[in-house]
Amino acid sequence: MSESNSEDLKTYFYNQTLDHFNFNPESFQTFQQRYLISSKYWGGGKSSSPIFVYLGAEASLDFDLPYVGFLSDNAARFNALLVYTEHRYYGESIPMGTEGMALRNASNRGYLNSAQAIADYAEIIIFIKQKFHALNSPVIVIGGSYGGMLASWFRLKYPHIALGALASSAPILDFYDITPSDIYYSIVTKDFREVSETCYQTIKKSWAEIDEVASKPNGLQILSNKFKTCKPLRDSGELKFYLDSMFCNGAQYNEPPRYPVNIICKGIDDGINGNSDSDILSKIFSSVISLRGNKSCYINPPIDDAEISLAWDWQTCSEMVGPIERGNDTMFPPSPLDLKGFLQECKDYYGISARPHWIPTYYGGHDIKLILHNFGSNIIFSNGLRDPYSRSGILENISNTIVAVSTINGSHCLDIQKANATTDPDWLVAQRNTEINIIDGWINKYYHDLLQIKKTSRKMI
Amino acid sequence: MSESNSEDLKTYFYNQTLDHFNFNPESFQTFQQRYLISSKYWGGGKSSSPIFVYLGAEASLDFDLPYVGFLSDNAARFNALLVYTEHRYYGESIPMGTEGMALRNASNRGYLNSAQAIADYAEIIIFIKQKFHALNSPVIVIGGSYGGMLASWFRLKYPHIALGALASSAPILDFYDITPSDIYYSIVTKDFREVSETCYQTIKKSWAEIDEVASKPNGLQILSNKFKTCKPLRDSGELKFYLDSMFCNGAQYNEPPRYPVNIICKGIDDGINGNSDSDILSKIFSSVISLRGNKSCYINPPIDDAEISLAWDWQTCSEMVGPIERGNDTMFPPSPLDLKGFLQECKDYYGISARPHWIPTYYGGHDIKLILHNFGSNIIFSNGLRDPYSRSGILENISNTIVAVSTINGSHCLDIQKANATTDPDWLVAQRNTEINIIDGWINKYYHDLLQIKKTSRKMI
Repeated sequence: MSESNSEDLKTYFYNQTLDHFNFNPESFQTFQQRYLISSKYWGGGKSSSPIFVYLGAEASLDFDLPYVGFLSDNAARFNALLVYTEHRYYGESIPMGTEGMALRNASNRGYLNSAQAIADYAEIIIFIKQKFHALNSPVIVIGGSYGGMLASWFRLKYPHIALGALASSAPILDFYDITPSDIYYSIVTKDFREVSETCYQTIKKSWAEIDEVASKPNGLQILSNKFKTCKPLRDSGELKFYLDSMFCNGAQYNEPPRYPVNIICKGIDDGINGNSDSDILSKIFSSVISLRGNKSCYINPPIDDAEISLAWDWQTCSEMVGPIERGNDTMFPPSPLDLKGFLQECKDYYGISARPHWIPTYYGGHDIKLILHNFGSNIIFSNGLRDPYSRSGILENISNTIVAVSTINGSHCLDIQKANATTDPDWLVAQRNTEINIIDGWINKYYHDLLQIKKTSRKMI
Repeated sequence: MSESNSEDLKTYFYNQTLDHFNFNPESFQTFQQRYLISSKYWGGGKSSSPIFVYLGAEASLDFDLPYVGFLSDNAARFNALLVYTEHRYYGESIPMGTEGMALRNASNRGYLNSAQAIADYAEIIIFIKQKFHALNSPVIVIGGSYGGMLASWFRLKYPHIALGALASSAPILDFYDITPSDIYYSIVTKDFREVSETCYQTIKKSWAEIDEVASKPNGLQILSNKFKTCKPLRDSGELKFYLDSMFCNGAQYNEPPRYPVNIICKGIDDGINGNSDSDILSKIFSSVISLRGNKSCYINPPIDDAEISLAWDWQTCSEMVGPIERGNDTMFPPSPLDLKGFLQECKDYYGISARPHWIPTYYGGHDIKLILHNFGSNIIFSNGLRDPYSRSGILENISNTIVAVSTINGSHCLDIQKANATTDPDWLVAQRNTEINIIDGWINKYYHDLLQIKKTSRKMI
C-alpha cells in the first residue's frame, strides 16, 4: 500500500533566516534547513494538485521518516507533492554548525522556539510553491505530537499558506494552567487497569516493594540480580525510572498489533515461567522479559536515559513548559507538582527565566471552543483515547470544520503512521478514512472557491 | 457628545518584554510601555462589559489622543473600559532610554517591527484583563492606517485575545507585489479632477512651469518670490515636494467640514485675488494661501520635511516596504518605481537588507478573499474612497463577518475621529452607526456563546 520513502525522496537544504522577528544584523544570519520532497505522484501546478507537508518536530527527520506514512500512503490518491521539513536545531538543520555550538551557548539557543519554527515552515512552503509553479496548490500540513501542535498552530497563524492541518495527538492544552498536570499518569493507570485489575494492583504495590528491598543490606544487589541489570543499580531510583518509562511508553504507544500494555500485563499476571504465584517483583520482571524479549541483561540506564535531547530539554525549560505530576489516584508513587522548583532548576541550568505564559499568549488555549468555534477552519485534531496525552488535546468538535477524530483504542500518533493492510484494525482504517475524506472535502471546497472567488474578484481583493 | 479624553484617562506603564520571539538573555530586557485607561463608563468584569483597545501606531499617543474619538464616543453606550496602547519605539515607549539610543544602533532598532508590536499588545491586554478581573470581557481592538493594519492582524493572529477589530483605513494590501504601486497618486489625481477639471489641468501643467522658471537666470529667486518662501529655495525640488505633499495630504485628509481639496481647487480656479486669469504658478500659490491662510511667508522646508520620524523610516526600510510610484496618468510628473534603488538606499543607510516579502509571508495579503472568506471573523475594514490609501485596503466584504464599510466621500481614518454633531455629514454618521451595530452584534453573539459554550463545555475544552 505505502511506498518506501527512501525510493523517491530527494533531499534539499533551504537557506533559512535565523531570526524572523528581529531585523538586527545578527538576525540576518542563515542556516541550512533540510527538507525532502517526493514528486512521484505529483499532479503538477497546472492542475493545482495539493501539497502535503509534514512538519518536523523535536527529532531528526531520519527518525520520523521510517514511521510516518500518512503522506506517502495518500500521495497517489491525491496526486500530491510530498514535503518533509525538519525542525530547526534538530537532525541536520542546526544553526551555528553543530548542536553543541547551537545549544550550549545562551545567545545561540534563544532562536530555538516554536514561533521561529513555524515561520521557517512558512518560508519554505512559499519557496516550494514558487519553485514548483504551484501558487494555487492547496497545502495540507501534517504533524504528530509537538509536530501536531505546530500543524494546528500553523493553520491558525498562516491560513494564507496552509489550507488545513492534520494535528495528530497534539496536546495543545498541555500547559499547566489549562489542563490539570496529573492527567497523564491518570490515563496511563486507567489504560493498565482496563486491561487487568490484578496487573494494575501488582504495579501499584511494586514501588513500595522495591523501596523495601532496596532498604535491606545488599538490597540493591538483590534488585540488580532480580532484574538481571546489565550494570549494578546505583540506587532504586534507576529501576523505578526504568519501569515508570516502560509503563508510560507502553500506554502512550499501545499500538496494534502488539499492544504493549497487554504484553506487560500478561507478563505480570502470568508471572515468571507462567507461575502466577510469583512474588510481586518477579511478576514485574516477568513483564520486562515479555516486552523486551529474552536478553542476557536488562535495564541499561545510560542508554535508556538518553531519549530526551538537549534541544527538547531547552524547549521545555523556555516556552513549552508543561511539567507533569503524579497524582494520588494512580498506580505510581505520588509526586506532586513543584512548578516553582521546576522553573528554578531551569533557571539554574540555562540562566534565564522560562516564560510559561508565552504559549497561551501567542497561541491561546483557554476557552478554546468559545474562541475557535467562531474563528478559523480546517483543522483535524486526531487522538487515540488510550494515549495519555489525548486528554490535553481536542476531543470534541469545535466547529463544523475544526473537528476531533478520536478512537477509543488508539494510541499516540497512530493514525499518521504507515498503514499496514494486514495488521491494522478496522477502527484505525476507519479513522484514517474519516481524516482523508475530511481533507478531500477541504480541497474540493477550495477548488470550488478558487473558481468562484479568485476568478470573479477584482485582482486587488 | 464625546468626552474629552484628558478628563478621565490615567497613564500607566507596562514592563514589556523586548523580544517575544527569542529566549536569549538579551531578549529578557524590558522597557516601559505606556498605556492609558479610562474606566469612567466601565460596566465591570462581573457583567463582562467590553474593553475597547486603541492600538497605537507610528506616532506618540500624545499625537493621536486629541483626534481619536471612536472609543470615548461609544464608551457610555457599551459600558466599555477604554485602553490606549502606545507602539514600541514611539512617544514615551522607547526601549534603551532614548530614541537616539534605540534607533541609531543597528542591534537595538531590530526589535522595532510589527510582529513584536502586536505581541506587546497581546501581553498588555491579558495583563489588563487580569488586573480588572475581566477575563470574560470581550475585547475590541481599534486602529487607523498602520494602526488599522495592526488591528486586523491582531484579530487574525490573536483571536483568543481580541473578539473583533475595527481596522480604519488599513492599507493591508499596500505591498509592492499585491497592489500596483501607482494607485496612490492615481486616486489623488481622481479626487482633484472630480472636484474641478480646470484645477486638475492647472496642477498638471504647473510642474513643467516650475521647471521652466527654475531653469531661467535667477529662476529660483523668481519662484521664491512668487511663493513667498520663508527661506530662498535651494532647488525647485523643495517647492515641488511641498506642493506634492500638500495635494496628497489634501486628498488623504479631505475631511468635512473644510474639505481641503475643495479649498485648494477653489484657490486655483479663483486665482490670486479672485483673478481667474492669473498665470499657472499664481493660481497654484493662490491655493497655498487658501489652504494655509494669510501668512507672512510659506514653504519652510525644514519644518514641512520633518513629518516622517526616524522610527517609521526604519520600519519602511525593513519590513513595511511599500514604495509608491507616480504613474503616467496622474497630475504629477511621472516617477517610475525603482524598487531596487529604494532597497539599495535602505541598505546603504541601515546596513541591512530589507525583507519586502516578510509582511505577505507573516500576514498574507495575496488572494485575501479566497483565504479569509473561509477563515477568521469579526473584522471591519472601513475606508473612505477618496482616501488614496483606500485602494490598498479591503473594499468588498470577504465573508459575513469580515466586512468592508466604505463611504464614497470619506477620507483617511475619518470614522474613528471624534464625532461632531454639528458638522458631521449624514454619510459619516451612518458609517459610524453601521460599525457600532456590527460591533454590537459581535458582542451579543459572544455573550450568547459564553453562556452556551463555556458553561456547558467540560472545563478542558
